[in-house]
Amino acid sequence: MIETCFNTSITGRAVKNDLITLKNINIRDFAGNKHMKVDDYPYGGGAGLVMQAEPVYGAYDHTAGLIRKKRFITGLKTNLPVRVVYMTPRGETFTQKKAHELAKNKEIIFLCGHYEGIDERVLEEIVTDDISIGDYILTGGELASLVVMDAVARLVPGVLHNDESAVTDSFSDGLLEYPHYTRPEVFHGKRVPEVLLSGHHARVDEWRLKKSLEITEKIRPDLYEEYIKRHTR
Amino acid sequence: MIETCFNTSITGRAVKNDLITLKNINIRDFAGNKHMKVDDYPYGGGAGLVMQAEPVYGAYDHTAGLIRKKRFITGLKTNLPVRVVYMTPRGETFTQKKAHELAKNKEIIFLCGHYEGIDERVLEEIVTDDISIGDYILTGGELASLVVMDAVARLVPGVLHNDESAVTDSFSDGLLEYPHYTRPEVFHGKRVPEVLLSGHHARVDEWRLKKSLEITEKIRPDLYEEYIKRHTR
Repeated sequence: MIETCFNTSITGRAVKNDLITLKNINIRDFAGNKHMKVDDYPYGGGAGLVMQAEPVYGAYDHTAGLIRKKRFITGLKTNLPVRVVYMTPRGETFTQKKAHELAKNKEIIFLCGHYEGIDERVLEEIVTDDISIGDYILTGGELASLVVMDAVARLVPGVLHNDESAVTDSFSDGLLEYPHYTRPEVFHGKRVPEVLLSGHHARVDEWRLKKSLEITEKIRPDLYEEYIKRHTR
Repeated sequence: MIETCFNTSITGRAVKNDLITLKNINIRDFAGNKHMKVDDYPYGGGAGLVMQAEPVYGAYDHTAGLIRKKRFITGLKTNLPVRVVYMTPRGETFTQKKAHELAKNKEIIFLCGHYEGIDERVLEEIVTDDISIGDYILTGGELASLVVMDAVARLVPGVLHNDESAVTDSFSDGLLEYPHYTRPEVFHGKRVPEVLLSGHHARVDEWRLKKSLEITEKIRPDLYEEYIKRHTR
C-alpha cells in the first residue's frame, strides 16, 4: 500500500527519476519467532495489543545500517544521527514549516505503529520526531506517514516542475488561495469575473489578494490575524 | 492508488464484509473531448492549470445519479442532499468531531482536485464541505481524501472490532495517550514501570491518567487547557 501510493503521480515520477528512494521495511521480518508475531498484551491491562520493542528495534537497526552503508559508499559523513519520525497522535502537529525542516535531511526513517501503540522503551531509544498529521484518529500510521512523505518529497529540489512549484508561493505567504476560473466564460449561467478577462495584470493581482484576504478571514481567522500582524509591523 | 490504499487493512476488511462500498469515478471520463483533457489555463493568468467546471460537474452528476438510484432501490428517502466533500487547503481543518459528523451520512462524494484548483463556479454549485486535513501542502487531494475516508470509515458500526474500538475511548476524552509497555519486562536494561506489574487496577489507572496529563501538557498545551477547563467546571 505504501509502495503503490508513493509510486503514483508526482512522487512516483520522482522515484523514477532517482530523486527519491523509498524502501519498505516490514517489522514482522524482525519478529524473531516462527509466527511473525510482533505484538503482545499491555502490562497493566487494557484493550488492544502493543507492538514489542525488540522487533521494532531490529527493524530500526537494520535500516540504520543500510543508511550508514549508503553514506559510506557515497562518501557522506557517516556519524550524523538518522532522523526517525514516529507517526503518533501524541506528536507535534505537522505543518509546512516542519515539512521544510525535514526536507533538509538526506534520509528519514518513518516508523508506523498500530494505533494501540509501540513499547515506550524502544521509542525513547530511537525516535527523534513524534509527528501527528492532525487531531483525528486513523486506523494506522501508514496513511499519516504517506502524507508527511508527500509533503516533504515535493520540497526536494527537482521533484516539482516549474509550473507546479510556482503554486507554492501563493500559499506560503500564509493566505488561503483565491478562486480559480478557466474556460468556458459562462458555466451554468455564471460568468467569469470581468476583471480576470481585462488583461490588466495589476487589477487581477489586486482582485486575487482581496479574495484571498476575504476567504482567509472567513475560514481561518487564525491565519488571517497572523498575516495582518506580519504585514503591519 | 485510492483502491489499493482503501482496500488494505481495516478499511479493506470493511469493504470485504460489505460494510462500506468504495466507488472511484475518474473525472477524465467526463472530459467530453478525445484527448481526455480536463484542465485549461486560468483566466487572469498565473502558473498551473485549473480543472474545468464541466467535467467535474459531469462526474458529480453521474455519481449523484448512482446514489439516487441506490437510494430508490434500497427504499431510502430519495430527496436528501448528497454530501460532497472537497479536499482543499481552503477548507475547515478536519477534526475527530467532523469525522463523527460525516460518519452519519450513508453516502459521501469526495472531490479531489489538483492543487492548482478547480473552477470556482462548479465548486459553488456542488460542494457541501470544504475540508483541509492540516496546514501543509500535498501534491494532490487524493491522499487527503484517503485520510478523511479512513477516519470516517472506522466510525461506521461494525468496521472496528471490539478490541480496536475500545482504544478510541482513551483518546476521545481529549488527552494524548499514556506510554504502553509489553513483554519483555526488561528491554536494553530498561524495566517496565513497577506499577504496571502490580496488578492493582486503581493504581494503574491513576498512573496512566497522570502520564496522559503530563504528556498532553507538554506536547499539546491547547488540549490540556481544554481538558482542565472541562473537568473543573
